[in-house]
Amino acid sequence: MDAITQAKKAAGEKAAALVQPGMLVGLGTGSTAYWAIEKIGEMVKGGLNIRAVATSLASEKQARELGIPITSFSEIQQLDIDIDGADEVSHDLQIIKGGGGALLREKIVAMASRRKVIVADERKYVKTLGKFPLPIEIIPFGWELVFRAVQSLQGAPTLRTKDDKPYITDNGNYILDCAFGAIENPEQLHHQLKAITGVVETGLFINMQPTVIIAYENGDVKTI
Amino acid sequence: MDAITQAKKAAGEKAAALVQPGMLVGLGTGSTAYWAIEKIGEMVKGGLNIRAVATSLASEKQARELGIPITSFSEIQQLDIDIDGADEVSHDLQIIKGGGGALLREKIVAMASRRKVIVADERKYVKTLGKFPLPIEIIPFGWELVFRAVQSLQGAPTLRTKDDKPYITDNGNYILDCAFGAIENPEQLHHQLKAITGVVETGLFINMQPTVIIAYENGDVKTI
Repeated sequence: MDAITQAKKAAGEKAAALVQPGMLVGLGTGSTAYWAIEKIGEMVKGGLNIRAVATSLASEKQARELGIPITSFSEIQQLDIDIDGADEVSHDLQIIKGGGGALLREKIVAMASRRKVIVADERKYVKTLGKFPLPIEIIPFGWELVFRAVQSLQGAPTLRTKDDKPYITDNGNYILDCAFGAIENPEQLHHQLKAITGVVETGLFINMQPTVIIAYENGDVKTI
Repeated sequence: MDAITQAKKAAGEKAAALVQPGMLVGLGTGSTAYWAIEKIGEMVKGGLNIRAVATSLASEKQARELGIPITSFSEIQQLDIDIDGADEVSHDLQIIKGGGGALLREKIVAMASRRKVIVADERKYVKTLGKFPLPIEIIPFGWELVFRAVQSLQGAPTLRTKDDKPYITDNGNYILDCAFGAIENPEQLHHQLKAITGVVETGLFINMQPTVIIAYENGDVKTI
């Protein structure tokens, strides 16, 4: 295991340690959340009694294989804690997510959770958001109109593809990866994008007051 | 044909008469738009050269059967005219749509169109919006959270069903029909709802400056 993977594992496990008996837990998606889910699986095998909602079909599969009981919002109203990764976290704790394509479910789960825990490695902890192109989830019908609307907001959009076809989210939608350069006002940009007809959700997770756990390549793990 | 159907037909045909040679035309969905599409089909058979984008799979099927050439937003950037129905039109020309379940595509097409023409019968022309429950299109995952968020905005939501299962839109989503009572500020309500994570689009068509054609049961057709 290389240094950065080791660091991600350490951060994921530190986040998992915040899970208490009886909690309702949101399970994130991505390479750091993966390690949190692995650790929670171990804890469940050791007798921890929790129920979880997963933010992607992939995370749900991982959780089921580990024996973590899965529930849904038809049974519960709120989660106690949500542990998820990020593509960028700014020093003022605004977040870009969606590189893995699960931003919509991730945001639904985060919004439903009392405590939000974000795990990320140091390369993703930045002064200003925007080096990572902002993913937005959009409706396939008329996606070209949203593409042009993003251009008119001075973003450079790219339709995400997989095997030369449009990438399809778990919700049947497309993703535009939008390079805006430095995002000085993430809240304003989120509202501008979300107001566009055809935009389902943006990857900007704004004012969520998360607990952020950063993994450093030297092995340090810091909670912010 | 009963009086109201006769009136809808007259209004649809009056709207169709606004279509000029060479135009790019949006085709709406519903019982009045149906008559506009029928008339446009006749005009195309008579030699009118247009291309159209349909707002629903049903309207596209009708148009294709009539020989109306169908295009898409991968080929065109903007429409010249969009003809569609409404569930309610207020005296200040704000609109509720979505009773037919096609609100999202209808709104995408309307937003892309230079001129918006709304055809409706007199029963739908009201002082204040809100007697008709407002449809909103939502993501199936975690729909219960949106349901409760609508309740917290003092709306009474109902999940639309078909054959005892959730109704599925052309985009794979659910519809909540939300009774708010009189909607005094449609613009504010639209923004409040659209800001909710999981809401894809609302049936409030705001500040679109439409041409409205009203069919009266006595046979009159008035353009507003």
